[in-house]
Amino acid sequence: MVAKSELKFVKSLQQKKCRSESGLFVVEGVKSVNELLDSPLKLHSLYATDPALIGFNVAAIGVSPAELSRMSGLKTPNALLAVFEMPKAKPVDYSGWVLALDQVRDPGNLGTIIRLCDWFDIRHLVCAHGTVDCYNPKVLQATMGSITRVNVVYEDLEMVLGKHGTQAYGAFMTGENLYKAKLSERGILVMGNEANGVSAEVEAMIQGKLSIPQYGAQTTESLNVAMATGIILAELKRKLG
Amino acid sequence: MVAKSELKFVKSLQQKKCRSESGLFVVEGVKSVNELLDSPLKLHSLYATDPALIGFNVAAIGVSPAELSRMSGLKTPNALLAVFEMPKAKPVDYSGWVLALDQVRDPGNLGTIIRLCDWFDIRHLVCAHGTVDCYNPKVLQATMGSITRVNVVYEDLEMVLGKHGTQAYGAFMTGENLYKAKLSERGILVMGNEANGVSAEVEAMIQGKLSIPQYGAQTTESLNVAMATGIILAELKRKLG
Repeated sequence: MVAKSELKFVKSLQQKKCRSESGLFVVEGVKSVNELLDSPLKLHSLYATDPALIGFNVAAIGVSPAELSRMSGLKTPNALLAVFEMPKAKPVDYSGWVLALDQVRDPGNLGTIIRLCDWFDIRHLVCAHGTVDCYNPKVLQATMGSITRVNVVYEDLEMVLGKHGTQAYGAFMTGENLYKAKLSERGILVMGNEANGVSAEVEAMIQGKLSIPQYGAQTTESLNVAMATGIILAELKRKLG
Repeated sequence: MVAKSELKFVKSLQQKKCRSESGLFVVEGVKSVNELLDSPLKLHSLYATDPALIGFNVAAIGVSPAELSRMSGLKTPNALLAVFEMPKAKPVDYSGWVLALDQVRDPGNLGTIIRLCDWFDIRHLVCAHGTVDCYNPKVLQATMGSITRVNVVYEDLEMVLGKHGTQAYGAFMTGENLYKAKLSERGILVMGNEANGVSAEVEAMIQGKLSIPQYGAQTTESLNVAMATGIILAELKRKLG
């Protein structure tokens, strides 16, 4: 039996405000929970309808499916639910390439982008205020464990570019052909909001405007921000290794 | 007033079986419907709660929100719903690069991949039987109109490769570095199923196994099939133009 207040508290962590106040976040499902248990993240509490599904020697609180359902953000909760402490954001290391997001709003896009950072060894992701919270459960689901290996910070992007953006690049529909552009050994790559792209204030601070060449019909909808990020990071790594 | 049987018929087009039998499919929403009205596709019938939202001079059947809701596959139907005739699949032109999918199951992935074909000017997409139906409403939503510009055919992939696959490439976790591989002027690129990759039978017919190099931690989850397709098509076009 878990106290009503505890069920309610865990459920409240679906909301950003409650996550910020407590410094805690929720991960659900056998695969995701085990991935995060196998990381340096600090566990706060673990709930299980079936403790045999926990891949590590960690104590869990037994719960009924009904109790799990009351804590869960999912329609069909999946055996395990864990509450972790948010890690402290580390200082961003600007000596290599850093990715920055100017108010990406879709949780699936942010999750995919965090996973891309992990794949392409981009260790630091700077999110402008207004970017979706990286501890949003839908973001976590899309990151597939990569959240534990990428340092995500929320900062004033204009300030960051003012301080570190001597070599700032960004993706624009009318930028220079990505494959012909000269890329510096280190820099900041800025990707914009789904609907509005990079904001005018941030655009003014960007020297290198990049564009993924389009080969098909001019009427084609532009590439999704996560897809564009993947293609640009792939080219960055191909060129610079 | 629309007859009950008509409401039921339109709703039935959410199912693949009914689409195959009738040769018709449904598109919903102001943006998508207008995009398809502005294409060579042949309209079968158009339903509107607000005809003013139709961007073209086309007759529509006025419906109440309740009627629209009974025809719709969406939780919140959006003013317009159109039924179109499926275009006849054209013969695939193997004189350029062709993309082939070996049983991609997720509608969002197929939709994204059709959109990528459009962007990268791949005009023919061969889907192995078992690949999700391209007229699935969730696929159509993700294609953003590109479905009208890409020729999607469903065929026996092994037979296709036996006949045309003298230069067949595929994406594999353990393939050759994509950036070091020699790519032919034309060929077939095969992308595999989300969980199982390319099937053993199809793999046996592939000469060029490609891999997107990974730069981060070895534990990173592999890239999603749509993302991998985007990165490989981008490189194909960069190299071959």
